[in-house]
Amino acid sequence: MKLLILNGPNLNLLGTREPHIYGNRAFEKYFKLLNAEFPNIELEYFQSNQEGELIDKMHEERDKVDGVVFNPGAYAHTSIALSDCIAAIDTPVVEVHISNVFDREGYRQNLLLAKNCKGFISGFGLDCYRLAVASFENGI
Amino acid sequence: MKLLILNGPNLNLLGTREPHIYGNRAFEKYFKLLNAEFPNIELEYFQSNQEGELIDKMHEERDKVDGVVFNPGAYAHTSIALSDCIAAIDTPVVEVHISNVFDREGYRQNLLLAKNCKGFISGFGLDCYRLAVASFENGI
Amino acid sequence: MKLLILNGPNLNLLGTREPHIYGNRAFEKYFKLLNAEFPNIELEYFQSNQEGELIDKMHEERDKVDGVVFNPGAYAHTSIALSDCIAAIDTPVVEVHISNVFDREGYRQNLLLAKNCKGFISGFGLDCYRLAVASFENGI
Amino acid sequence: MKLLILNGPNLNLLGTREPHIYGNRAFEKYFKLLNAEFPNIELEYFQSNQEGELIDKMHEERDKVDGVVFNPGAYAHTSIALSDCIAAIDTPVVEVHISNVFDREGYRQNLLLAKNCKGFISGFGLDCYRLAVASFENGI
Amino acid sequence: MKLLILNGPNLNLLGTREPHIYGNRAFEKYFKLLNAEFPNIELEYFQSNQEGELIDKMHEERDKVDGVVFNPGAYAHTSIALSDCIAAIDTPVVEVHISNVFDREGYRQNLLLAKNCKGFISGFGLDCYRLAVASFENGI
Amino acid sequence: MKLLILNGPNLNLLGTREPHIYGNRAFEKYFKLLNAEFPNIELEYFQSNQEGELIDKMHEERDKVDGVVFNPGAYAHTSIALSDCIAAIDTPVVEVHISNVFDREGYRQNLLLAKNCKGFISGFGLDCYRLAVASFENGI
Amino acid sequence: MKLLILNGPNLNLLGTREPHIYGNRAFEKYFKLLNAEFPNIELEYFQSNQEGELIDKMHEERDKVDGVVFNPGAYAHTSIALSDCIAAIDTPVVEVHISNVFDREGYRQNLLLAKNCKGFISGFGLDCYRLAVASFENGI
Amino acid sequence: MKLLILNGPNLNLLGTREPHIYGNRAFEKYFKLLNAEFPNIELEYFQSNQEGELIDKMHEERDKVDGVVFNPGAYAHTSIALSDCIAAIDTPVVEVHISNVFDREGYRQNLLLAKNCKGFISGFGLDCYRLAVASFENGI
Amino acid sequence: MKLLILNGPNLNLLGTREPHIYGNRAFEKYFKLLNAEFPNIELEYFQSNQEGELIDKMHEERDKVDGVVFNPGAYAHTSIALSDCIAAIDTPVVEVHISNVFDREGYRQNLLLAKNCKGFISGFGLDCYRLAVASFENGI
Amino acid sequence: MKLLILNGPNLNLLGTREPHIYGNRAFEKYFKLLNAEFPNIELEYFQSNQEGELIDKMHEERDKVDGVVFNPGAYAHTSIALSDCIAAIDTPVVEVHISNVFDREGYRQNLLLAKNCKGFISGFGLDCYRLAVASFENGI
Amino acid sequence: MKLLILNGPNLNLLGTREPHIYGNRAFEKYFKLLNAEFPNIELEYFQSNQEGELIDKMHEERDKVDGVVFNPGAYAHTSIALSDCIAAIDTPVVEVHISNVFDREGYRQNLLLAKNCKGFISGFGLDCYRLAVASFENGI
Amino acid sequence: MKLLILNGPNLNLLGTREPHIYGNRAFEKYFKLLNAEFPNIELEYFQSNQEGELIDKMHEERDKVDGVVFNPGAYAHTSIALSDCIAAIDTPVVEVHISNVFDREGYRQNLLLAKNCKGFISGFGLDCYRLAVASFENGI
Repeated sequence: MKLLILNGPNLNLLGTREPHIYGNRAFEKYFKLLNAEFPNIELEYFQSNQEGELIDKMHEERDKVDGVVFNPGAYAHTSIALSDCIAAIDTPVVEVHISNVFDREGYRQNLLLAKNCKGFISGFGLDCYRLAVASFENGI
Repeated sequence: MKLLILNGPNLNLLGTREPHIYGNRAFEKYFKLLNAEFPNIELEYFQSNQEGELIDKMHEERDKVDGVVFNPGAYAHTSIALSDCIAAIDTPVVEVHISNVFDREGYRQNLLLAKNCKGFISGFGLDCYRLAVASFENGI
Repeated sequence: MKLLILNGPNLNLLGTREPHIYGNRAFEKYFKLLNAEFPNIELEYFQSNQEGELIDKMHEERDKVDGVVFNPGAYAHTSIALSDCIAAIDTPVVEVHISNVFDREGYRQNLLLAKNCKGFISGFGLDCYRLAVASFENGI
Repeated sequence: MKLLILNGPNLNLLGTREPHIYGNRAFEKYFKLLNAEFPNIELEYFQSNQEGELIDKMHEERDKVDGVVFNPGAYAHTSIALSDCIAAIDTPVVEVHISNVFDREGYRQNLLLAKNCKGFISGFGLDCYRLAVASFENGI
Repeated sequence: MKLLILNGPNLNLLGTREPHIYGNRAFEKYFKLLNAEFPNIELEYFQSNQEGELIDKMHEERDKVDGVVFNPGAYAHTSIALSDCIAAIDTPVVEVHISNVFDREGYRQNLLLAKNCKGFISGFGLDCYRLAVASFENGI
Repeated sequence: MKLLILNGPNLNLLGTREPHIYGNRAFEKYFKLLNAEFPNIELEYFQSNQEGELIDKMHEERDKVDGVVFNPGAYAHTSIALSDCIAAIDTPVVEVHISNVFDREGYRQNLLLAKNCKGFISGFGLDCYRLAVASFENGI
Repeated sequence: MKLLILNGPNLNLLGTREPHIYGNRAFEKYFKLLNAEFPNIELEYFQSNQEGELIDKMHEERDKVDGVVFNPGAYAHTSIALSDCIAAIDTPVVEVHISNVFDREGYRQNLLLAKNCKGFISGFGLDCYRLAVASFENGI
Repeated sequence: MKLLILNGPNLNLLGTREPHIYGNRAFEKYFKLLNAEFPNIELEYFQSNQEGELIDKMHEERDKVDGVVFNPGAYAHTSIALSDCIAAIDTPVVEVHISNVFDREGYRQNLLLAKNCKGFISGFGLDCYRLAVASFENGI
Repeated sequence: MKLLILNGPNLNLLGTREPHIYGNRAFEKYFKLLNAEFPNIELEYFQSNQEGELIDKMHEERDKVDGVVFNPGAYAHTSIALSDCIAAIDTPVVEVHISNVFDREGYRQNLLLAKNCKGFISGFGLDCYRLAVASFENGI
Repeated sequence: MKLLILNGPNLNLLGTREPHIYGNRAFEKYFKLLNAEFPNIELEYFQSNQEGELIDKMHEERDKVDGVVFNPGAYAHTSIALSDCIAAIDTPVVEVHISNVFDREGYRQNLLLAKNCKGFISGFGLDCYRLAVASFENGI
Repeated sequence: MKLLILNGPNLNLLGTREPHIYGNRAFEKYFKLLNAEFPNIELEYFQSNQEGELIDKMHEERDKVDGVVFNPGAYAHTSIALSDCIAAIDTPVVEVHISNVFDREGYRQNLLLAKNCKGFISGFGLDCYRLAVASFENGI
Repeated sequence: MKLLILNGPNLNLLGTREPHIYGNRAFEKYFKLLNAEFPNIELEYFQSNQEGELIDKMHEERDKVDGVVFNPGAYAHTSIALSDCIAAIDTPVVEVHISNVFDREGYRQNLLLAKNCKGFISGFGLDCYRLAVASFENGI
């Protein structure tokens, strides 16, 4: 099984950006642990601050991966284009958010992508990615 | 570690109720598999259709369990009392929803409890409970 | 044919409560007349002020009755849990309101259950129950 | 007793128009059955697609009939003029809708006439007319 | 000078309709007094319950009268077509309302025609018409 | 008969302020013409830019005048205190606006005082005052 | 092929009404050019200021024409009855607006009919009708 | 005089729950002081987390007590059923809130019960109960 | 202890203004009783219809009094300046309203000052002032 | 004459993406037919998933083409930057949408670009492009 | 060049009021530094807590100063009268706010005056006044 | 001191785009004057029409510059991603707008970035940049 881990805007700053909200680990370090945790799953990682590049990436990978773990960052609240992209491809997408978006500004309660995703996980910090990958394993 | 699995209104009908939305397995069957999946975690199960009984249960168990996996059903969208209950106790609560609430009626986008929960998982069917229990295990 | 007549919060006070709105007959007296009016239909009566008990009752009776005549009182405007309950069972439910809810406070225009009911009757005073029961008879 | 059965816009197409919503019987056929069902009540039938003609009709008949069974169709949601008309005459008006308006588009939840009507019946198909006429009979 | 006095829906019932709101004089009687009050102004009177007929009338008279005194009744709150009609003709239109629309239902605060009228007079009972006609006389 | 002509904020600038909206005559000049037009009515004039002084003035004059012609200017849209003042005194108040408020910014459609006034006249320029005074004369 | 060209309220004034918005050609003149442009299509023209007459016309013609080019004017923003009419008939309807409705008042952004139409064309002046008729020709 | 002190959801946790908002005294201790403060008033205390039980209690006590001091907790913002209950009984009810609800989340500004209560007291901590009881004493 | 009793707009009319809402006692008479009721507390009284004078007064007295009992009248619903004033001074302010503001117009539910006040008391008539003063005494 | 055909996000997937909504032809194939249909018009085609690249393209081409046929996809509903771009250039832009946007999600009714475009065409499938190009030909 | 520095409600408390928001310098001290910074500009300073006095002041000074630097405090969010005043005078007004109003309560985002001002500066603390005065100097 | 001058979408067209709103000078010319005005400050200039490139640039420069003068153009109203970017970096950002955004379309009143910026300057034309740079100098 192959999964694409896709991170949106400002997530390249993880570890330095507002650590009281997002924690203090860079995603690259966490990604190594994630690979170790799931030895049977091939994980690819991509990050972009560009709405359109995230769309491009999902278009390119849509037939090459079995699923996408997508942290859209702020685009979760503003991008109908990304929402359409997820609806347009057959690959299942799991949306993750490091922080508890429901405990933040009102405009973060507007979740435009979630309705087209397979599932939604938020609030567990970086552990959201582990749970999202686990959701692609065989359940019980 | 001990966790309380708490189910809200109409979830006693799981397996018979609108199977195209909620699946066709009764929760009791799934609960056995869940116990088998996590042999090191003690799981307690409680269901009620009463908003107040769910509050009572969380009050009673708040010092006896290490966490709560809570599917509040429709009360997720209407109960400030349950939201206050979760804020009032120290025990971490993970909110789960079997269906993808973001792909349903507008009034289900109003999530009153989530801001006081540790995390939120929805859309994976019964597998949400497995992921929620896994979120209480040590992460990476 | 067997029907459940289900009354929600504060309807136990009928006859004493705000008679200019709800009339001055206790429901128990009316219920006898209703039985007399429909000798071929078995009528069961249940009232509760508890949202959850109303759900419990519909769950229990769902395979035992051919229909429910339900006056949800104020829960008509606040209970998604009752709305989900009606959607979850196969038994047809007719919603009735004694007063004309459209001529009252704005928040009573928010009718959360009606979309899942078979039909809706309001404004005829206690006569709503007679019409609701008649709706279960063979039409023309 | 004499009642006016009044039908608003597009109801002349009943039986041919969207039968999954409105059924497949023309109203004229049903009207004969209705007359047979209530031999002691004189029923008059009028249909118009014109908001103003419906007002004219109610003005003309207001002293000649004991009540009106009115299916305003879409004017239920847009016509304050019809609402004013019902308030202006003394004749009681019962509003009926063939389909369950609460299970349709949001703009059909805006019911401008209902507050001035004696009662409201919806969702029972053509049987709404039978129940509405029955509401003018002596209750119990 | 010639003026058209134009009355909209339900105003044919003036004198019998809700006298606590609209008074108890029929408009025809008042119209005679109005003629007597303004001997130098030719007054024409037209009433219709039809939105479209009111439009037709203004189209027909637009080059024949020096102004219109228009009580649109409930169409004041719902008819963009009448608003467009007033904007489309060069003849100045004064909108009048017998009752104080600002002291009534919320939906009567929505005044769609007023922005295209020369002026607006409400709340003085039938005296609104006298003031409106006076507004076409030479001011000071 | 004695009437108080009361002008609110910025109306002291009449004649110099935005003449395309408010005309180019100072109110003092117009007031002389108004006195000449109504020789049998005693007119008193007061202007203030202070919300509270306008309240004070109405309190003081409430038993001394037979009516108030009040142009509240912008306070029409923001002052519940002035609205309460008009409700608290028995003297009838006629609200006037020089411009057509319905053809201006959205926030000018919010008319907080009008519901407590006897009548409302707008859009006729300074002629509104003449019509308002005329409304206190015996009608027909 | 036969098409009905249907024009709503105030469009009989085309050429004289607000020419900066609607142009200065009467529709009748344009209609001749339109016939010449499409020699193989039979065009019928009907205009009414009456909401109900427009409904009547579509009912009558629904089996006689292959399509309707409909400029509903202001009824586009207020008439659920016309919207229902279009949904009730099988004949495809193309909605046209001479002006760019999106560059006008906010209430013109509320397009109640469009969802039931085959297509929507606005902003090209009278050329909208040519494009609408062309849409019924075989495409590429 | 006899008063019922009625506490709603989560108030059984007083003293342990979020002490920065609700203080650190259990209500039972405070209740003793309250009794001592008002030796001439008989006070009865009842707490429930169940909306329906609070309704039941008010129904049962409505003829036995002279008034109710009611802290509805979160039900203040969601329960039309409790609001109806207060309107249905003749016993005066004073609503109290320990914290200043106006300085908290937006959804706590929605006070559904207050309009049917005799009075409203909030923000004084537990002292609200003393003031509420004092409001039942003879005033000055 | 010294307290400032501060009354806002129109409260100088107490006893004459709408007695069905505000009672029929002038505040000055009540103030004497209030002084007698609390012999150990020095009470100062000030009333103004001016928003700015109420601000001035609170600024002046802020270091001279131990608290303010403030009935802001209509400014409760419109004055952010008064709300800022209360936040800017250290003296605790208790907001009182004679009538039950929650049972009145919708715009009176908008309470801009309350969040910055120590507490809020409404609905007890003039007795609100007694309770407010009592709230400054030592509680239990 | 030269026109730019500009396609926004996800339109590169045309023919594979949700064919029940968007049809099953790739745009490249259709573009050849379009060229054949209009031999006298030079057509240039550009697609990007990037909001900024679409802006860049319009900036670059603004003096080189006579018009733009623009399908902005989801950016129609979210991009004020693209709306500003269209306002900033002199080249006329025609907005097209393959599907009937008025029959889809509520957020697609928010059309931010349309007010700055010359015209708007939607609902005809790929045929929208043919009609849009035809709109640049000489009309009648 | 002469400028009026105008401060609104509660700004007389600067230096003592909520110093974490507004800083701890009294405005009078800062005003001296401001004079020193701009030796070629004559600065006049006026402060009032009265909405009407601020209007009066601008009326009086409108022909005597070349510009106004205006910190309206809370009146920025509530005063249409002040907004009208700025529109009514020809003197350019620059609005300043010491704090970052965009990072505060939602009701402070409602800026009623700004549209009529020449420019808007906020968030720089007292330095806003320096920048505002500098904006009246010759730019580059 | 080094500052980054950052311009968003469509600002590359300055001087040619809607000169009545944005003026007729290209930014490059102005930038030279700006450098001359502040000889002691190093200014770097970057413009992009891409939301993501503006984020990238701020990420890259965040440790290299002492501040950012940012004109986000239309992204000010739609980009939560840029707002998050400003919150994520420590470098102070001053938001500038050439036109008075408060005097334009309603959707330009929605300022998503401003709350995370140090200050906000709008309406002074290109002079906004001079004032913004001056805000980084030592104040008084």
